[in-house]
Amino acid sequence: MASPPKLKDILDFLGRLAPWDLAESWDNVGLMIGNPEQEARGVLVALDPTMPVIDEALEQQADIILTHHPLIFHPIKSINTATSSGKLLKKALNHDIAIISCHTNLDLIENGVSDGLAKTIDLRQTLPLAPAGNKPGQGFGKIGDLPSPMDRDHFLRLVAEQLNLRSITLAGPVPPVIGRVAVCGGSGAEFAETARAAGADIYITAELKHSVARWAEENAFCIIDGSHFATENIVIPMLVAKLTTFFQQTNSAVPVMASQRQGNPLHHYFYENVTR
Amino acid sequence: MASPPKLKDILDFLGRLAPWDLAESWDNVGLMIGNPEQEARGVLVALDPTMPVIDEALEQQADIILTHHPLIFHPIKSINTATSSGKLLKKALNHDIAIISCHTNLDLIENGVSDGLAKTIDLRQTLPLAPAGNKPGQGFGKIGDLPSPMDRDHFLRLVAEQLNLRSITLAGPVPPVIGRVAVCGGSGAEFAETARAAGADIYITAELKHSVARWAEENAFCIIDGSHFATENIVIPMLVAKLTTFFQQTNSAVPVMASQRQGNPLHHYFYENVTR
Amino acid sequence: MASPPKLKDILDFLGRLAPWDLAESWDNVGLMIGNPEQEARGVLVALDPTMPVIDEALEQQADIILTHHPLIFHPIKSINTATSSGKLLKKALNHDIAIISCHTNLDLIENGVSDGLAKTIDLRQTLPLAPAGNKPGQGFGKIGDLPSPMDRDHFLRLVAEQLNLRSITLAGPVPPVIGRVAVCGGSGAEFAETARAAGADIYITAELKHSVARWAEENAFCIIDGSHFATENIVIPMLVAKLTTFFQQTNSAVPVMASQRQGNPLHHYFYENVTR
Amino acid sequence: MASPPKLKDILDFLGRLAPWDLAESWDNVGLMIGNPEQEARGVLVALDPTMPVIDEALEQQADIILTHHPLIFHPIKSINTATSSGKLLKKALNHDIAIISCHTNLDLIENGVSDGLAKTIDLRQTLPLAPAGNKPGQGFGKIGDLPSPMDRDHFLRLVAEQLNLRSITLAGPVPPVIGRVAVCGGSGAEFAETARAAGADIYITAELKHSVARWAEENAFCIIDGSHFATENIVIPMLVAKLTTFFQQTNSAVPVMASQRQGNPLHHYFYENVTR
Amino acid sequence: MASPPKLKDILDFLGRLAPWDLAESWDNVGLMIGNPEQEARGVLVALDPTMPVIDEALEQQADIILTHHPLIFHPIKSINTATSSGKLLKKALNHDIAIISCHTNLDLIENGVSDGLAKTIDLRQTLPLAPAGNKPGQGFGKIGDLPSPMDRDHFLRLVAEQLNLRSITLAGPVPPVIGRVAVCGGSGAEFAETARAAGADIYITAELKHSVARWAEENAFCIIDGSHFATENIVIPMLVAKLTTFFQQTNSAVPVMASQRQGNPLHHYFYENVTR
Amino acid sequence: MASPPKLKDILDFLGRLAPWDLAESWDNVGLMIGNPEQEARGVLVALDPTMPVIDEALEQQADIILTHHPLIFHPIKSINTATSSGKLLKKALNHDIAIISCHTNLDLIENGVSDGLAKTIDLRQTLPLAPAGNKPGQGFGKIGDLPSPMDRDHFLRLVAEQLNLRSITLAGPVPPVIGRVAVCGGSGAEFAETARAAGADIYITAELKHSVARWAEENAFCIIDGSHFATENIVIPMLVAKLTTFFQQTNSAVPVMASQRQGNPLHHYFYENVTR
Repeated sequence: MASPPKLKDILDFLGRLAPWDLAESWDNVGLMIGNPEQEARGVLVALDPTMPVIDEALEQQADIILTHHPLIFHPIKSINTATSSGKLLKKALNHDIAIISCHTNLDLIENGVSDGLAKTIDLRQTLPLAPAGNKPGQGFGKIGDLPSPMDRDHFLRLVAEQLNLRSITLAGPVPPVIGRVAVCGGSGAEFAETARAAGADIYITAELKHSVARWAEENAFCIIDGSHFATENIVIPMLVAKLTTFFQQTNSAVPVMASQRQGNPLHHYFYENVTR
Repeated sequence: MASPPKLKDILDFLGRLAPWDLAESWDNVGLMIGNPEQEARGVLVALDPTMPVIDEALEQQADIILTHHPLIFHPIKSINTATSSGKLLKKALNHDIAIISCHTNLDLIENGVSDGLAKTIDLRQTLPLAPAGNKPGQGFGKIGDLPSPMDRDHFLRLVAEQLNLRSITLAGPVPPVIGRVAVCGGSGAEFAETARAAGADIYITAELKHSVARWAEENAFCIIDGSHFATENIVIPMLVAKLTTFFQQTNSAVPVMASQRQGNPLHHYFYENVTR
Repeated sequence: MASPPKLKDILDFLGRLAPWDLAESWDNVGLMIGNPEQEARGVLVALDPTMPVIDEALEQQADIILTHHPLIFHPIKSINTATSSGKLLKKALNHDIAIISCHTNLDLIENGVSDGLAKTIDLRQTLPLAPAGNKPGQGFGKIGDLPSPMDRDHFLRLVAEQLNLRSITLAGPVPPVIGRVAVCGGSGAEFAETARAAGADIYITAELKHSVARWAEENAFCIIDGSHFATENIVIPMLVAKLTTFFQQTNSAVPVMASQRQGNPLHHYFYENVTR
Repeated sequence: MASPPKLKDILDFLGRLAPWDLAESWDNVGLMIGNPEQEARGVLVALDPTMPVIDEALEQQADIILTHHPLIFHPIKSINTATSSGKLLKKALNHDIAIISCHTNLDLIENGVSDGLAKTIDLRQTLPLAPAGNKPGQGFGKIGDLPSPMDRDHFLRLVAEQLNLRSITLAGPVPPVIGRVAVCGGSGAEFAETARAAGADIYITAELKHSVARWAEENAFCIIDGSHFATENIVIPMLVAKLTTFFQQTNSAVPVMASQRQGNPLHHYFYENVTR
Repeated sequence: MASPPKLKDILDFLGRLAPWDLAESWDNVGLMIGNPEQEARGVLVALDPTMPVIDEALEQQADIILTHHPLIFHPIKSINTATSSGKLLKKALNHDIAIISCHTNLDLIENGVSDGLAKTIDLRQTLPLAPAGNKPGQGFGKIGDLPSPMDRDHFLRLVAEQLNLRSITLAGPVPPVIGRVAVCGGSGAEFAETARAAGADIYITAELKHSVARWAEENAFCIIDGSHFATENIVIPMLVAKLTTFFQQTNSAVPVMASQRQGNPLHHYFYENVTR
Repeated sequence: MASPPKLKDILDFLGRLAPWDLAESWDNVGLMIGNPEQEARGVLVALDPTMPVIDEALEQQADIILTHHPLIFHPIKSINTATSSGKLLKKALNHDIAIISCHTNLDLIENGVSDGLAKTIDLRQTLPLAPAGNKPGQGFGKIGDLPSPMDRDHFLRLVAEQLNLRSITLAGPVPPVIGRVAVCGGSGAEFAETARAAGADIYITAELKHSVARWAEENAFCIIDGSHFATENIVIPMLVAKLTTFFQQTNSAVPVMASQRQGNPLHHYFYENVTR
């Protein structure tokens, strides 16, 4: 490919990396906005399509944004430009910024989101937690073993450091020693029972609801809520690396960048005087 | 209203004229694209939201387009700016052109689309053909009487002239004398049986399918296909007049124009040598 | 087969020609009315099951009518013999006239309705426009090439002559030269985008709605509405030929006739004085 | 009404007696087959539309059959005249026999099927067992009191005699004394729990399934299966009387007859040597 | 297996005998109540899970009940212990009685319920009446031949004796000589047309509704209602034998018993004075 | 009521306090397990039905547990007593512990869950945030004003103290001064846009998902996740008070207690060394 790659070439590459039809039926993946014929001048990768990310793309002269969460999730019946989502669509269209999303198709592939999460805490011999899709290795989540069992404090410190969290929310008693760990980036509470049945000592996921937390307590099974952002954002460097390799292999000098302007939307207020 | 009216004021006015919740469940009406807070500088009224109409609005310095057919009918999952609909969304957003659509809510009100069609051929004492909605007078289509019965040739000439058609498609035998006429602007074939049962001599609507035409032939009932464009475009001057009055009553000097760049998308090729 | 063939033998033959289970899920094909054990005395083939066709069958001493459009489309909850469809069922049952319909199963097979339409204008190297079914060659519509490119006027004259039309309705600009043509007999507007993407210069189908016509105009793609009757009735001689061969091969002297009493239910009124 | 009544007049009368829109959503009532304009020459009333009943109508010179069970229950996709239902439709159409059905609309009215059943065993002060519809008194089944409590043997003998049954199928223990009785003509097992909760000593209905019978046994509540035919056929004389009065009031000499050729399709074989 | 078998071992065995996923989608099979880890002390087999059967299990020191009909059919939203089903759940849980159900999975296997019924009347060369499932031999019902044709009286006596019935309900005329017989244990009326088309002289099933009985009469096809209990209870000894063999093969001294406290919930009252 | 109240009397009282049919269609409320006729010996009130709460009831000699979250949410297809939910059902049935749940019916009433939350932080002039139900004052959430505007730090400290939280999760920027506050106990993220449109400075609810947190960030609207437990458990004393009054008014000496053994199932691990 001597000529510069086009948006459609990037869509083709991503569709080979994480096939679009792997996505769940309720999901929306692929081209969100843009012209498949436009030439790629730069790609910015981020977890969410937000206004600061659009601004960052403009400053970095990137004309393509690749996100994990889809720009359009519920199909659109009107574009009200007084709303934040309407403003975003308008700005992207005004500046010819294309947006692509790889969501559940990227969750399901063997080396997808949860694989990144598993590697972050150095899990070995991982297998899919809930096999899905049509190839071995595909599925939601991963289950595997730490290089060697760790005591409770070391493990929690490891998770906090790797996910860069000052506060970890959890449910159920933390076992004194941890060897086998299940993980699922993002909102994976539905696989808690699977994780426990598969012999995990602990399960790391996000968006831990009260009902699941109570179930964990009743079953003395420990679930860590590592936050949606922290457990998924690890896929960003992976996507940057894959795209960079793709452009190198096609001899295209298209810069690929990870967003520097997107943090965890959840933050914490700590109060010392609470008694309990 | 000393200050210039905003898009939201126009939406309020149209919602009083043709209540939004009158629209059919499968329809999409109201704000299609735009910022409810933007100030109205000019309104262009057209049957369909098309690229030439956007260009016309720009030239006429109108920032609001009011259409009968909705800009977004099937909710949108992606905006591909290589397609005609994607280009249109982009151009409207780029130039801050708002688009509003009044569709089946405008069909159903007492003085709506079919009422305009009935008046075009001077029907008297009209009633709704298929009552619907929650007020008397509301419904799809109209049925009424010509001022006095007309013979076949005069009637067809009247329809051709009023709808500005060189060729009228029809099914079933045209009765020699016509007194009572049913009409329904746009695609109203579903009310053909109702029109016949109500004693109409002839029924004028559009998008006459083969199966309905065969039913008309079998039942010796005449249906005229006046074309979707011609049977509905008559609502444009009515909307222009209503909006003009509204701006006058609110002391706003907002110009209202009917589109000059939108014709019937169906045209005809005539061939003299066909034997049948 | 020395003994005369029965209705069930004809059903078996048609099911081999155009397998019943190829029909769309919303369709109704096969035996509409009749006794599978009745002996075939004559077969009359027509596009629609109508009263004049029943009368023609009686006069021709045919006891079986084969139609493309199904006699019963929406399942029946009552038979009101004051209506045209009730009268038809009654007359057929009173005179032991069986009716069989081959609808979307006949659209989908390789040598089905659209194949006949393609041959009518001499398209070469045709392929299915929208592949469907479970065998190569099956699908809706055909796309292929004219023997050599034609200019606009010659092409329109060819279509008018072959489909026996004095007036052709169309949308979008007719290209000056036409080489590649897509066709779909009957109501095929849903494949317009497919036809354009496949590189057709022009697309011939029927029941062209306003919204599709406007889309054609916006995309500068030409669609011809050749009328449902004219684009499908060409399948009648094909069915007559197939059945004749079948009876010859089984040594049965059952006459097969094409209906002479069924024309296009849509006709036209032409008015010279329209200005536009 | 000096002129003879038409089928449509009878439909109007029946619709006043048992409004068509009272029928359950899954049901089909009203005109099944026939011409609303045909003149009534005689009406034959029967529980089911069967071939012997058509023959009886022909012999009695009745051109209208009124049944409780609908001729067409599942909407028809084809009429195969080799089947019993196809033969029946054909014969009715060939001989201009109209068929009307009053089904769940006749179950629900205050003086409907179950009211007839209640009167058969002389229940007093009856109320609807399961109120439904939009007027007081409407509903499925009836519950009321015997003129005075009866012992078990007298009650069963009463039921057997009034329903003309040599064998009564029942579930649950028959109470020694019976005062309060619930009834529902036809298949009313779904109201068994309602009948028990309402204080009935016994419940008479039909089509008693194993699961309901076991429930009756477990709850020591007695349910009698009086057979669908016997518990509903009592409505025939009521319909005959109503129609006769209607014709008298309109000075029409149209004979109304109850079918003499329709018995209980269930019969019994008794075997003396069974030990249990 | 030296250690005593557990409930889960029995579930595994039953799942091999009659695979759980063969069950119909509306059905509920497998573990109804109990702890998969509990040790089997005794198994009581019965058609229905009832209170007398629970009592029998307690007296027999059986801690597992295997039934054909599921304990929980409609999923439970509350457990009201004033009702018979609430009492039953409570008693089973209080006394650690586990309940397993094999329902439509046991109907469908080659040697299932209908096979037992077929053997009861000595049918030979049987095939599934309505093939289903994913293996040859699987399906609903059986059809086969008597060792030699029997006259009507001998056949009815055979059925009455083998099913231990004093009264047999039937519809349609009993043929004078019977050779080919279709059977379906339980509620199999939906296969009546299949049985007739397959050439059966007679069809034995249960829960014969009025509409099916009338169809049988119209088509002169004989259907016997052998009662749900009698046509299915024959599976009990088969299940007892299979479980006994399983325990022997695993060297487990777990007693297996057929319930002695469950009869046909339907009984009959015979009245001699009925005239018909 | 001289005699001790029964479970059904308490159900009646709760149904008057928070009508059962106010509950959402997907919810399950009312009697979960128990005998309506059992006499009330003591009532224990808790947020969730858990094993420690059952044990507490037994120790406190309470035979009725009233919870906010339903014991049975998804209807039950089997009771596996090896699982925590199966053990709980078994223990409750074994010890005649009845369980009642008031869920969305208690959310919706005027003085329900969110009203308790609003009072906890001393909101005045509250109105329903999202009106629902059929009476004024009913609806999800509350919106109202603090007695006087507070600065950011005081407000967060107030929330932390009143909800007894050492760590508060939040999204979006906390405004410097807070006057108008919206609250919704439990999982109320779906009303975030409503809260903002209604002019709230801040919205307190629970189970704040990533997508909603990102929306808050984009719209600069602050949402506090006060945890499901803490924002709902405040309803427990209210229920204790209501039931105590009820028993006093009926002269019944039934003790009513709030559970002492149920805390927030979510806890936190704090790590000091995280940089961000």
